[in-house]
Amino acid sequence: MPEDLAHLVTSLAQRARAASLALAIAPTAAKNAALVRLANLLTSSAEAILSANQKDLDAAKENNLSAAQIDRLTLTPARLAKLAESVRQVAALPDPVGELLEETTRPNGLVLRKIRVPIGVIGIVYEARPNVTVDCAVLCLKSGNAAILRGGKESFHTNTALAGIIQQAIANSELGARNPELFSGAVQLIPTTDRAALMTLLKLETLVHCIIPRGGEGLIRFVAENSTIPVIKHFKGVCFIYVDRAADFVMAEKILVNAKISRPGVCNAAEQLLVHRDVAEQFLPGAARALLAEKNVQLRCDAASGAILARANLTYIPAIEADYTTEFLDYILAVRVTDSLDTAIATINRDSSNHTDAIITSDAAAAQKFLAAVDSAAVIWNASTRFNDGFEFGLGAEIGISTDRLHARGPMGLRELCSYKWQVTGTGQVRS
Amino acid sequence: MPEDLAHLVTSLAQRARAASLALAIAPTAAKNAALVRLANLLTSSAEAILSANQKDLDAAKENNLSAAQIDRLTLTPARLAKLAESVRQVAALPDPVGELLEETTRPNGLVLRKIRVPIGVIGIVYEARPNVTVDCAVLCLKSGNAAILRGGKESFHTNTALAGIIQQAIANSELGARNPELFSGAVQLIPTTDRAALMTLLKLETLVHCIIPRGGEGLIRFVAENSTIPVIKHFKGVCFIYVDRAADFVMAEKILVNAKISRPGVCNAAEQLLVHRDVAEQFLPGAARALLAEKNVQLRCDAASGAILARANLTYIPAIEADYTTEFLDYILAVRVTDSLDTAIATINRDSSNHTDAIITSDAAAAQKFLAAVDSAAVIWNASTRFNDGFEFGLGAEIGISTDRLHARGPMGLRELCSYKWQVTGTGQVRS
Repeated sequence: MPEDLAHLVTSLAQRARAASLALAIAPTAAKNAALVRLANLLTSSAEAILSANQKDLDAAKENNLSAAQIDRLTLTPARLAKLAESVRQVAALPDPVGELLEETTRPNGLVLRKIRVPIGVIGIVYEARPNVTVDCAVLCLKSGNAAILRGGKESFHTNTALAGIIQQAIANSELGARNPELFSGAVQLIPTTDRAALMTLLKLETLVHCIIPRGGEGLIRFVAENSTIPVIKHFKGVCFIYVDRAADFVMAEKILVNAKISRPGVCNAAEQLLVHRDVAEQFLPGAARALLAEKNVQLRCDAASGAILARANLTYIPAIEADYTTEFLDYILAVRVTDSLDTAIATINRDSSNHTDAIITSDAAAAQKFLAAVDSAAVIWNASTRFNDGFEFGLGAEIGISTDRLHARGPMGLRELCSYKWQVTGTGQVRS
Repeated sequence: MPEDLAHLVTSLAQRARAASLALAIAPTAAKNAALVRLANLLTSSAEAILSANQKDLDAAKENNLSAAQIDRLTLTPARLAKLAESVRQVAALPDPVGELLEETTRPNGLVLRKIRVPIGVIGIVYEARPNVTVDCAVLCLKSGNAAILRGGKESFHTNTALAGIIQQAIANSELGARNPELFSGAVQLIPTTDRAALMTLLKLETLVHCIIPRGGEGLIRFVAENSTIPVIKHFKGVCFIYVDRAADFVMAEKILVNAKISRPGVCNAAEQLLVHRDVAEQFLPGAARALLAEKNVQLRCDAASGAILARANLTYIPAIEADYTTEFLDYILAVRVTDSLDTAIATINRDSSNHTDAIITSDAAAAQKFLAAVDSAAVIWNASTRFNDGFEFGLGAEIGISTDRLHARGPMGLRELCSYKWQVTGTGQVRS
């Protein structure tokens, strides 16, 4: 019954809001203790979690999920141990809450302090990966935010078991000892995957301050289109590598191969290659041989690059227009020859998803122009696109890689899960 | 015809997107020169602007707009001169674009630089105040953003004239000299107030990166509910003053009077008073006398505060529940007695709009607790709520005061109109 569902989700969000106010001023040690307890429970309660996971796996087989989907859904004792380890790592990170961002004293004597504070209540809407339940809960808790989790139906039993463990960890920690009822609102899983419940959540803009969708493009678009709450989107990566006229070819080939094949299914893998016309003939055949030898990468070429590969007797197929804006997530690379640095920049600003784009060059002026003019979350000079990642950037953990421009851009760690407030201290000042 | 309108707005947004890429790397001096030229044109073209404004004023009288609405709509030579002066002030502010926010070197030698960059294309949706046309255009241009302006029908002729002047200033500046066609997309007014055009704009999430609605609550809600583009909201201020047990009564009264009466129609004016039970009897009669004497402020009281005023023979009316969450924007104040600091904090976190809330106390521990626990954009100790303002905070200019928690909270100046990008410099690093 939709009305009951709306009531259920609203009341859950009210509890989250109350918990968020308490979490915002909770001591670091109390939050960390709850996280360490959770890490311990993830291994000590492995049996119960794996048994819930088995129910989801049985349903997945019945529903003919793909091998990749089933793999993402599957928990094992080893994966649980790794998850527990990642929870301990977040517990060990510095607490972002309370950090002083700016401090100024105004001519009238007012002291302004801009202080990092939690956002408040964060709704996470995700698909079948149960580890997201733990990752997001942990990042929200550490950053002082209350979390409302809405996972996919494929991992419903696993998510329910994990959410129960998280609740238990908080209840048995110092936070729970202070006020069990209040802190039971800190991390809550919506106990249904009914879409009406999700729709209710997306409209609760007075109680929920931010929605983070994690999953495929369809889910993210659905959430963005239906939410009255600000959404931080984590869309696809159509990442480019531009091999400049002044590139070191050995470096360029090594980076290209790494960016394309080290993990083709992730958003920071390279999907697009642009090569400067002056060096295409020299660079492309060797690079193509390396990609073909390593993983038989399918090269989808424009006329100019195709002609070069044809002369070298290398396999390729002619690209169609859509290839130039596609996130393949596979051993496929679209290849184009470009006339100049300027055309490369214009092409990338038109066709990339503004996620991660790299230039390979020994020409510092060309690199600086590229870094300034390419309008992407991460612009990289002489390194692999695969580095755009919270861990690689030293953030310690990430809730995703934002393709938005507002609030957070690129990897979102604990700091990016925070807002700020202005604390103003006076001595009786009034405004004239 | 809606289809033509959709085409018109889309093509305008495409031009804005192209201009934004050029503005993002435009030199500070070129942007400032265009702003100074605009300032000059605002006074030298006063006649044309005022004649357009007269058309709007004639229509306003026909349509029986209120005196306050007509005042907001009216331009005069003096107001134009003041507007020109504010444009010169923005030209004189530091350029936020290119500021280095963070720099780290990773163990593998990668150098990460987090650089402030413009957001991109910003849509401003506003009501009848024509000065918003200039203010927003100027703040966007200085911060390297392209602006799409959609004003209200009441100021349509004035906005059209002002947008023409802005276009002219850019065209005749160094920016226009470089590429007149490209930079004509930098600031554009949607040449119709048809709602279908607005609806098209709000769905252009691949071309427009941020929507800022300025106006009444109805407009802001409409925009937030219909936009697939991130919206930064500037909602109402239901601002509280809490007079603590340890308050200096002279200071408290001075601050209360200033916060309530210095400009009651603005969002940082006080609307709500909470007084600690232990001092209510001592504080309230004097404070009420001051408010009544100054502006005959209507006091809407709970039972406890009403009884105190009644014993002092002072005028008040009993409050109804809705008064406690109302933004009066008038000489009206809701008054309640509260049991403790904790109840004051809980009341404010429940009833305020999280805009600006102040505590008056000599007890530093109580103040620190209030500053930490009250979940508002600005929390103030011993000063007037009226200070929550971009100019008072030293930002030099503001596009509004955000009541959102994401991206910007509180006064939004040039920096808050920016995003950031990660510039990564390597020497051939690949990811293992």
